[in-house]
Amino acid sequence: MPSYTPPTKDMQFILHDVLNVTGSDIPGYDELEADFTSAILEEAGKLTSGVLAPLNVVGDTEGCRLENGIVYTPTGFKEAFEQVKEGGWPGLDMPEEFGGQNMPYVIGTAVGEMFSSANMAFTMYQGLTHGAASAILAHGSQEQKETYLPKMVSCEWTGTMNLTEPHCGTDLGLMRTKAEPQDDGSYKITGQKIFISAGEHDMADNIIHLVLAKIVGGPEGIKGVSLFIVPKFLVNEDGSLGARNGVAVGNIEEKMGIHGNSTCVMNYDGATGYLVGEEHKGMRAMFTMMNEARIGVGMQGLSQAEVAYQNALDYAKDRLQGRDVTGTKNPDGPADPLIVHPDIRRSLMDQKSFAEGARAFILWSATMIDAAHRGEDKDADGIVSLLTPIIKGFLTDQGYDMTIKAQQVYGGHGYIEEWGMSQYTRDARIAMIYEGANGVQALDLVGRKLAQDGGKHVMAFFELVKSFIKDNAGQDEAFDKEFLDPLKAASKDLQAAGMYFMQNGMSNPNNALSGSYDFMHMFGHVCIGLMWARMGKAARAALAGGTSDPDFYETKLATGRYYMARQLPATALHLTRIQSGGDTVMALEAANF
Amino acid sequence: MPSYTPPTKDMQFILHDVLNVTGSDIPGYDELEADFTSAILEEAGKLTSGVLAPLNVVGDTEGCRLENGIVYTPTGFKEAFEQVKEGGWPGLDMPEEFGGQNMPYVIGTAVGEMFSSANMAFTMYQGLTHGAASAILAHGSQEQKETYLPKMVSCEWTGTMNLTEPHCGTDLGLMRTKAEPQDDGSYKITGQKIFISAGEHDMADNIIHLVLAKIVGGPEGIKGVSLFIVPKFLVNEDGSLGARNGVAVGNIEEKMGIHGNSTCVMNYDGATGYLVGEEHKGMRAMFTMMNEARIGVGMQGLSQAEVAYQNALDYAKDRLQGRDVTGTKNPDGPADPLIVHPDIRRSLMDQKSFAEGARAFILWSATMIDAAHRGEDKDADGIVSLLTPIIKGFLTDQGYDMTIKAQQVYGGHGYIEEWGMSQYTRDARIAMIYEGANGVQALDLVGRKLAQDGGKHVMAFFELVKSFIKDNAGQDEAFDKEFLDPLKAASKDLQAAGMYFMQNGMSNPNNALSGSYDFMHMFGHVCIGLMWARMGKAARAALAGGTSDPDFYETKLATGRYYMARQLPATALHLTRIQSGGDTVMALEAANF
Repeated sequence: MPSYTPPTKDMQFILHDVLNVTGSDIPGYDELEADFTSAILEEAGKLTSGVLAPLNVVGDTEGCRLENGIVYTPTGFKEAFEQVKEGGWPGLDMPEEFGGQNMPYVIGTAVGEMFSSANMAFTMYQGLTHGAASAILAHGSQEQKETYLPKMVSCEWTGTMNLTEPHCGTDLGLMRTKAEPQDDGSYKITGQKIFISAGEHDMADNIIHLVLAKIVGGPEGIKGVSLFIVPKFLVNEDGSLGARNGVAVGNIEEKMGIHGNSTCVMNYDGATGYLVGEEHKGMRAMFTMMNEARIGVGMQGLSQAEVAYQNALDYAKDRLQGRDVTGTKNPDGPADPLIVHPDIRRSLMDQKSFAEGARAFILWSATMIDAAHRGEDKDADGIVSLLTPIIKGFLTDQGYDMTIKAQQVYGGHGYIEEWGMSQYTRDARIAMIYEGANGVQALDLVGRKLAQDGGKHVMAFFELVKSFIKDNAGQDEAFDKEFLDPLKAASKDLQAAGMYFMQNGMSNPNNALSGSYDFMHMFGHVCIGLMWARMGKAARAALAGGTSDPDFYETKLATGRYYMARQLPATALHLTRIQSGGDTVMALEAANF
Repeated sequence: MPSYTPPTKDMQFILHDVLNVTGSDIPGYDELEADFTSAILEEAGKLTSGVLAPLNVVGDTEGCRLENGIVYTPTGFKEAFEQVKEGGWPGLDMPEEFGGQNMPYVIGTAVGEMFSSANMAFTMYQGLTHGAASAILAHGSQEQKETYLPKMVSCEWTGTMNLTEPHCGTDLGLMRTKAEPQDDGSYKITGQKIFISAGEHDMADNIIHLVLAKIVGGPEGIKGVSLFIVPKFLVNEDGSLGARNGVAVGNIEEKMGIHGNSTCVMNYDGATGYLVGEEHKGMRAMFTMMNEARIGVGMQGLSQAEVAYQNALDYAKDRLQGRDVTGTKNPDGPADPLIVHPDIRRSLMDQKSFAEGARAFILWSATMIDAAHRGEDKDADGIVSLLTPIIKGFLTDQGYDMTIKAQQVYGGHGYIEEWGMSQYTRDARIAMIYEGANGVQALDLVGRKLAQDGGKHVMAFFELVKSFIKDNAGQDEAFDKEFLDPLKAASKDLQAAGMYFMQNGMSNPNNALSGSYDFMHMFGHVCIGLMWARMGKAARAALAGGTSDPDFYETKLATGRYYMARQLPATALHLTRIQSGGDTVMALEAANF
């Protein structure tokens, strides 16, 4: 049975040593003293390791069950959800006026990682609710906010996102679900939505579906899409639950993983819906949810990599097999532990350096989201917009690979469900697919985000890397060589790729789009490389300042050196592929495959 | 529901255009005329696509069931196994004196790929039997051969390999299963073996277990291991089945995939066993099975990549989503098919160029096995010995990645079990683990095979690449640039890595072992690069000769160009990692992870 230990120490290091949150002028950050954040993280840690993690295998084994229109969640989920609600965790970063605690997003993000590591399928019930609440918060009317948000912030009611239909996923312009205006200002929603996470379940009194649909007679395609609130139970004026609405679960899907989350086919049969925001502007509102969801999904990549790594590490220390070629390490035992073997080390270091780098990347991004939302910092908003597809696409691809590496450490036992390592890979797999498959993220990055606002944000990112290198070079030869030089080389590769797109993408967009996936990955490596350079700097400062915990900081430096030497140079390969152009990729007629 | 189309045309191209089998002087190859091999491949193709492929999902969904000591295979497996036996497929490449058809291994390999693509879990029952029969053929006494082989060659009886115990996988020296000599020359075998594929099932009259055990009083560790035949039912002198032996299935494992194959815990309780070969020389005999099994497992990587790719391709042609950025391709439809999108192309080309390259690599290796076994060619034997860990490790890693890419093409539908794409990834996953986890393959390659016979075989491989380049350069500028130059560069990287190991591995073996995994991968790329260069040459020759099917050969060239431009350059990244040395990998104390 796998276990989970919340990485609170590492989170504290990132928040305080690296990001220096209390030194920031983002509103609310001055309260984030180390003792305060530590108390929150420890408390969340207890809940996640003690209550949620033990239910992870249960959720996978039992799955959800549909009987007579009711979806039953796995044993223990309901009770755990009550504990989560009682602790006020779902509203951690929500406004106080709707019952939240108004904490910065960066704290919600750190806590969210722990929830997701402990039990990804379980955490999605509240994650979807959070996304739906954010959309209502940003685009709903005051009345809608007052009606739905207090119950959603507490997770008394949960939420969903309804985009996909059987014939349309990425291409939402093909949508068929229709909305017919009624005399009372509401709409009748009719159609079928699929892949609706938490679409129906037994843990909440009401479920608030946010549904994309086309108002009859509106514009064709994506321009005719509007967003609606469709509650499972209509809400009376006094806030009590009224009649059952015309929405029902049709089926739950048999999936590769996240069995604990009910993935539903939802049938809307003249269900009453309420327009959110303006007519035909549904995509804008939906993007509020999606951008949040994409960062949350990127975090799922990290979260599964982290917990899988922890278990692989334990196994590598426990399992005795073979001898260290440089000399026996466990002379009294029948063999040495796996961890003595260089190839096991390589795998563990890949995992460790990714997880810690990805955590810094996500928390740094979260501070920029706080800067954008709380401090109205448009530059931060621009960079986050640029980085969102990278967080989603790169971190889920890499996170998945890390779960595979962790499973591999277990040898044959990794393949046996009883040991729990298979679940991490099967759960992590979905993160590469939903909220826009990773190929779509790459397209978003190269086709949209690079040129956004005249390329301003990508230039700002390069400037950020450049000035970090400039500000920190020349103080320590080893740091320059081990951290700054590789970062500079990788950043140069990334810029060369961008240049290639500019010079060749105009004449033939396929030259850019054929390289989009590689570009997303090389950009991700540069981001994590930047994080490791920043962490390396912080570790050096702590050691120079005479820390009482030198092992921790020396370990940081060693882990960073590994990433810079073994992972970051992947940018060169991605550049080679990109520069080979689109013709090789597009050479075949479809019929000749 | 996924489907499978046997790639017989591609196999014929490799056998005849590339490997020119009838032009070889390997005994038996003169019979391999194109019409003859075509007839065999078409016949096997019908059986695999018509009978085995439709049972693949059934096997996954139902799995095996243990009741009162009997393992029931999924619905339809038994009947299909009868058809396989009736067709004589299990004995295709077995000696005629034991009922086989004595065909070259290369034909068995081509047919084996189809069986495995169609239904990997099903095919393992005969695959394990083949391996066990090969071990008896190579190391058993004449009496043992006569007693067991005719029934095993026909698959009337099946076979198993029993190595792993709960506390020992790779490190077989830790083995506890013991063998006590009896007065009649037999042994009493006692112990527990785990992960025994096809250990118990309902498709054969008898199961012949090949079991590694330590004879009581023998040498410690791996040097005290012997190999035994332990039949489920003892065999009377007249060949009829006698008493039930003291071996029983204890449990069947719940696995991530290959649900159709029964993975058993086997308990030996004073079971009667018969020594195979000499006392304490069990590992040598076991390696006969293991080397065969490792190539078979490498083929599983290819086989799952191939069938997953076929289905991804179909989906990419069918599914309408979005528009071609360079101009609508399906103006009468609501959207263009997925295959117009460059990032989908990238994924499909990755899959196609891998599958075809890997097929050539495996069939070429099979010809060298034939040369070694039928022609007693020691050089060929040496190269195959060198390449075996690469075939196993590289092809299963890459094959698995390709199944993930194929699944990704399906978007959300890829995650739903009903669509069948998840099964390919879950089944393919085991191939990276069993028969020696891929890290152990890398260790075998770098720690043992490189220096084998004074490095003779790796030098022979480099010579082979070099002479191919030399013999074919200067005839066509495009071919030089697109095929030979990249192959030369990749081969140079590989040699540089070997040089690094020589110069730095002596002083500290960790410098070599930390790079072993990267070395295995770069070596694999060079092998497939060599195959693409050979295929490119053959395609050019066919086009120059005025083929009636120019599209086929032009497609080959385009696919080869893709591999050379986008995949082969990975060698440079692997070299960078290797040259970064072992210190970065081994920097941390185990306690500091």
